[in-house]
Amino acid sequence: MSEIVCLGIDPGLARVGYGAVAQSGFRLRALNYGCIETTPDMSFNERLLIIYNSLQEQINICKPDLCSVERLFFGRNTTTAEYVYQARGVVMLLAAMNKIPVTEPKPNQIKLALCGVGDAEKIQVQRMVQRFLNLDEIPKPDDTADALAAAVTGLAMEFSR
Amino acid sequence: MSEIVCLGIDPGLARVGYGAVAQSGFRLRALNYGCIETTPDMSFNERLLIIYNSLQEQINICKPDLCSVERLFFGRNTTTAEYVYQARGVVMLLAAMNKIPVTEPKPNQIKLALCGVGDAEKIQVQRMVQRFLNLDEIPKPDDTADALAAAVTGLAMEFSR
Repeated sequence: MSEIVCLGIDPGLARVGYGAVAQSGFRLRALNYGCIETTPDMSFNERLLIIYNSLQEQINICKPDLCSVERLFFGRNTTTAEYVYQARGVVMLLAAMNKIPVTEPKPNQIKLALCGVGDAEKIQVQRMVQRFLNLDEIPKPDDTADALAAAVTGLAMEFSR
Repeated sequence: MSEIVCLGIDPGLARVGYGAVAQSGFRLRALNYGCIETTPDMSFNERLLIIYNSLQEQINICKPDLCSVERLFFGRNTTTAEYVYQARGVVMLLAAMNKIPVTEPKPNQIKLALCGVGDAEKIQVQRMVQRFLNLDEIPKPDDTADALAAAVTGLAMEFSR
């Protein structure tokens, strides 16, 4: 049976979680996953460039058929939003440059896909990521687990079309 | 006297204004300027890719020593902000990829640099762009004029260091 690979991404500026999941029939398998980190002592542009280069490397490794990039929601914290959205633009550009279709699940869609309810707690989502992917432990940091959750959701959305 | 070239950019998703200005002593001269347009019938990713490719072409033409990318301010229109900030991220990435230092003037700094007051009207800024650059008419659309204004401001900020 042919395998479909989805690269989930949890966008951010200080931390960009990524996680590739391969689906073959009902079987899910984690490929490369982790977290790209940048620090405030770097210039903003430098941080965007690190995200760009590091994520391109991960795309080269897993060669995804699909990307699943979490939608972001901000309340009144617009200063953070400004920078995180700009970093998300780099992620979306990379998908376009690599000609990878993108799905953009909202946080509640991810919770629904993994836990069956749209308002599940973070730890529930993380436990389900661990269970679905048969991992020895919950992936750290949270951004990595979130990215894998986005990947599983992306595959579920793709499969149910 | 050596010339310094600043590429001004007015970021957006539907329209990205760009304008390169060369300064030699007190003399300013407009080089390539215009507006990159994308339309809502394109996918969001496709639009980011067009901005990326088109702006890289303009960078190749003017080979700027400096980029001046206008800071964006949004009130409550957060949906527009989300997409425009992502497009701005592509602009900032390009500067980093081309190793061009970036200055990020706020709208009131641009008005102050061109008109001497931080709350000047749009038409005043446009007339001063026309005058400083000795153009036959005000550049259209507004995004182009705004980008040239950002470039003039970038040079003024650079010169006054």
